[in-house]
Amino acid sequence: MNPSTSHRLRIRSGGKEFEIVVDERRSLLENLLKAGIMVDNLCGGRGICGKCAVKVISGSFSPPTDRELRWMKVLKPGMRLSCQVRVLSDAVIEVEEVSRGVEGKILTWGAMKGLAVNPLVKIMKVKLKPPSLQDQKGDLERLLESLNVKSYDPLIIADLSDALRESDFEVNVVSYEDEVIDVIPVNEELRFFGVAVDIGTTTVVAYLYDLMSGENLGVESAYNKQIRFGEDVISRVDYARKDRSNLEDLRKAVIDTINELLENLTQKAGVRRDRIYDVVCAGNTTMLSFLMGNDCHYCSKAPYIPPFTSAIKMKARDLGISINYRGYVRTVPSISAYIGGDIVADIISSGLHECECTAALIDLGTNGEIVLRTREGEFLAASCAAGPALEGYGVKNGMRAVKGAIESVVIDDSWRSYYRVIGGGKPRGICGSGIIEAIAWMRIRNIIDETGRIIETDSEWVKSEAGERQFIIVPAEDSATGREIVLTQRDIRAIQLAKAAIYAALLTLIHIAGISLNDLEKVFIAGAFGTYLDIFSAQVLGMLPDIPRERFSFIGNGSVMGAAMLLLSRETNEEAKSIAKRIKSIELNTIKEFQSEFIKATHIPHANKELFRNVIERMESL
Amino acid sequence: MNPSTSHRLRIRSGGKEFEIVVDERRSLLENLLKAGIMVDNLCGGRGICGKCAVKVISGSFSPPTDRELRWMKVLKPGMRLSCQVRVLSDAVIEVEEVSRGVEGKILTWGAMKGLAVNPLVKIMKVKLKPPSLQDQKGDLERLLESLNVKSYDPLIIADLSDALRESDFEVNVVSYEDEVIDVIPVNEELRFFGVAVDIGTTTVVAYLYDLMSGENLGVESAYNKQIRFGEDVISRVDYARKDRSNLEDLRKAVIDTINELLENLTQKAGVRRDRIYDVVCAGNTTMLSFLMGNDCHYCSKAPYIPPFTSAIKMKARDLGISINYRGYVRTVPSISAYIGGDIVADIISSGLHECECTAALIDLGTNGEIVLRTREGEFLAASCAAGPALEGYGVKNGMRAVKGAIESVVIDDSWRSYYRVIGGGKPRGICGSGIIEAIAWMRIRNIIDETGRIIETDSEWVKSEAGERQFIIVPAEDSATGREIVLTQRDIRAIQLAKAAIYAALLTLIHIAGISLNDLEKVFIAGAFGTYLDIFSAQVLGMLPDIPRERFSFIGNGSVMGAAMLLLSRETNEEAKSIAKRIKSIELNTIKEFQSEFIKATHIPHANKELFRNVIERMESL
Repeated sequence: MNPSTSHRLRIRSGGKEFEIVVDERRSLLENLLKAGIMVDNLCGGRGICGKCAVKVISGSFSPPTDRELRWMKVLKPGMRLSCQVRVLSDAVIEVEEVSRGVEGKILTWGAMKGLAVNPLVKIMKVKLKPPSLQDQKGDLERLLESLNVKSYDPLIIADLSDALRESDFEVNVVSYEDEVIDVIPVNEELRFFGVAVDIGTTTVVAYLYDLMSGENLGVESAYNKQIRFGEDVISRVDYARKDRSNLEDLRKAVIDTINELLENLTQKAGVRRDRIYDVVCAGNTTMLSFLMGNDCHYCSKAPYIPPFTSAIKMKARDLGISINYRGYVRTVPSISAYIGGDIVADIISSGLHECECTAALIDLGTNGEIVLRTREGEFLAASCAAGPALEGYGVKNGMRAVKGAIESVVIDDSWRSYYRVIGGGKPRGICGSGIIEAIAWMRIRNIIDETGRIIETDSEWVKSEAGERQFIIVPAEDSATGREIVLTQRDIRAIQLAKAAIYAALLTLIHIAGISLNDLEKVFIAGAFGTYLDIFSAQVLGMLPDIPRERFSFIGNGSVMGAAMLLLSRETNEEAKSIAKRIKSIELNTIKEFQSEFIKATHIPHANKELFRNVIERMESL
Repeated sequence: MNPSTSHRLRIRSGGKEFEIVVDERRSLLENLLKAGIMVDNLCGGRGICGKCAVKVISGSFSPPTDRELRWMKVLKPGMRLSCQVRVLSDAVIEVEEVSRGVEGKILTWGAMKGLAVNPLVKIMKVKLKPPSLQDQKGDLERLLESLNVKSYDPLIIADLSDALRESDFEVNVVSYEDEVIDVIPVNEELRFFGVAVDIGTTTVVAYLYDLMSGENLGVESAYNKQIRFGEDVISRVDYARKDRSNLEDLRKAVIDTINELLENLTQKAGVRRDRIYDVVCAGNTTMLSFLMGNDCHYCSKAPYIPPFTSAIKMKARDLGISINYRGYVRTVPSISAYIGGDIVADIISSGLHECECTAALIDLGTNGEIVLRTREGEFLAASCAAGPALEGYGVKNGMRAVKGAIESVVIDDSWRSYYRVIGGGKPRGICGSGIIEAIAWMRIRNIIDETGRIIETDSEWVKSEAGERQFIIVPAEDSATGREIVLTQRDIRAIQLAKAAIYAALLTLIHIAGISLNDLEKVFIAGAFGTYLDIFSAQVLGMLPDIPRERFSFIGNGSVMGAAMLLLSRETNEEAKSIAKRIKSIELNTIKEFQSEFIKATHIPHANKELFRNVIERMESL
């Protein structure tokens, strides 16, 4: 290699930094891939998909190609398409960390702000005065006297006498808030643990923490075993209502799911399960209701009343969660039937409540939940029924984000699609994030018009079946099933309704707060679906508002991270309670404006083009 | 019948009063028995046993016979032997209520002072404002807000939503202390119940109460199923210590026993088991420890430390007691390893703590417990190992107080025994109360001397076997087994040790308190054995002190009655806690005087005859 054509490139990624040598005669993408650095790219370096963008920090690079120029209007400032750019000197770039599971796509990562470790569980070492014939008070009374607390779990009594004598009346006393829940001889190892759980309708994620250091000791996830009783919340609520024993089925299913995660977490980390004393569960209102044995039936009809919204604390033994039976399982407080503890956890994890600005949090799923925070610290929240299409349900070739699903799509000028399949190989269908990108590109390439209608055309990529037009993303010969993978007109309509609901909900909250979209300085995108969402595509669709890309940030599984923060910090725990109380829940069905905004928002991107001026300009450049 | 020989006799008995016509030519006993009034009598009207004594209130009676004169020195003032006396005018007498079970002799009655019903369980009717789209707070939060309490059992959540809507948001809220434990639609019947339990080593007794009226709705008793793991406390403690699962056996056995009693109580009374919210358990320290899952091992060796002495409150579901699973099971507070919650309950039931005098409480059994209250309100308590002989164990022909046991004995001048058998029929053996009376009469008839030795004699009633003398109470032909029923020299020695321990313990406490025996204005006798005890016989033996008969009173099963009072009254509950704290437990093994008093007390009645002057005088008169 000619020395003058090779340069040193420092790469920053996910807090780490390393260096490779690059050849200026090849594209940056080629250099990165050769060095084993996985950079997203769909179109194979053709400059079509824009996925291989990296941020350039310093150094000299080749000027933008035509292709790249189009994209530079869309990308955040400082971003270059690595397939189009060559490195001309020693340089520094930043690459987004790409780390995705190969099998399912259960979102296990999340952002956690730094916080001081101060859990509800505390340990105190005490040395008791040993008893004598002159001092015959009971073991329990001797212990309590030395602690100056009056509250204790009576189930500590069983082991107390032996524990006190095992290390000569010197013990570590484990307390939960102000209740003594365990007494451990000082000669035993002193570690104690907690677990944060996000109970999703589809998936359950659990994080194990050392409650002394705050260190994360493992992450496990699994599908919610309730799925066999119904894929979505509504069918499960129906099932639960039919029979008391059905409700118990559901309760047991989620308990079993959590217990399996606990088993895996503790085995892998090599810790004792009976040294876990605290489990914090986030989840939507229905999931938390089922956990507590309530069928949540009245959530689903007006006036939509949940069984509870506060933070519930229950003995692990009462729930059947297999940690120390004197420990507790508790819920993150929620706000209403449709704004659950998962959203409060999202807020905590995102730091929305601490923003000194106008900001929003959007959790995308079958229900879209939106929380708006004004500069003055007022909180409004609303939920809208987006329907299951965003999660791949009710879409002809839709599927969950599991192996074989197309998760990302780009369409070139000739209407050919480039895509990425979860787990690699031939695709079996398309999941939510793929559907969003596909429809956005269909709009960019004018395969659909503003109303979402697939245009009349002779193109080989559009065909009609039973009088319904459909766009072919994957020809039959390229799919795993041997059948085409398409998006039908009906599929597009379903997505239009979903995206319109979300946008209209956000806009309605914005109007209720008396501000404008442009006041939004930060938008946090939460949830599994959101995390894999391409912001630009979502803007093209008109689901997310037309504000600069850098104002958006993903918080990943904010629900489990928020739960973890409540687990680790008393202060955060109190904060969550106070936030839950402060948030005003808006019932969109009672707001007239929501209906009219919803109709306008079904256009792509919107009936009022002014609202998407920048996005439309960028679309047109591509 | 000649009208001039018949008179009207009013009889008072157990609070009731009724009238019969009597014939002055027959003994009062004959007249009573003819009228169907069961009066105790062993000797068949021979004036030997003194059991048929009744109290004469008014009227004219025949003068005492020689036989009766002897007894009148022994009996309380105003008492006459009904077999010896004839009624010569219209008259009024009082007959002690005689009510004994035919099968076993489980003590189910007890005295309860009048008290205002004020249980820990309360019901409050509340009418909640129904929810609306403008007021969507959770059901739990709506309820709590209306109650202004913060504490609740999270297991109320499961049924809450339906309960609130069943009677249009008007419900009866059941609380325990300050915790909401149930929510019942107003259209359901409003009754709630509690149970008092005495967990004896041998028998368990349970009383069912209506907690609104304080009315007793039933009494049930059964043998403690723990018996199969050991008849006495020590063998059960040994069994429990051997293996963790053994302890669970014991715990389960007593829980099963209680659950069976609950089942019987509720079935017979026709009440719902899930409307029982409170169970108060009295029992000795070991029984209460087993209940709470502690093996109580350290109670049995110096310095004799119990796992707990305070009043423990545990959710019924945690214990497996089948009442409402959100209700509580709690213990009567105890004092030390050997002064249990049963004794505190005895105190409460007897009113010892409220006596404005010097008084004592004696609970007789394998362990004798003695509580002394000084005029100044100081409380001293001690326990002494009396051994199992008083309960019929370790005695050649001894047996428990069940069907076929001789429970009462008197011996005439010719050394022939008259006796009463529990359940009637031929005797199979002799139980504690019978043994006490038999030995007392052996002393009165000089069959044994002051040291307890059976004298050398040619009498057919005394024989030797393997070099040991024995006294024949029942000849072979009169017994159910076809073998003689005897008391051996060894049997008498065992009783001497038992009675000496009790007397020495009482005397030691008296001395520690700096008072004298004669200061005792009241002596309460508690417990199953005590209730059937003949006070005079016990004084002849030197077990009870030589103070006037009327100072003694039986409180029956004071343990279950005390538990019932704690169940029914918050104030009494607090009183019990305060008493338990005030009582000073004396470890007799650490007191030198106890040993020397014990030796002196082995004589019958005592080495120091001065202490039993009156008793000896009466003995000699018989």
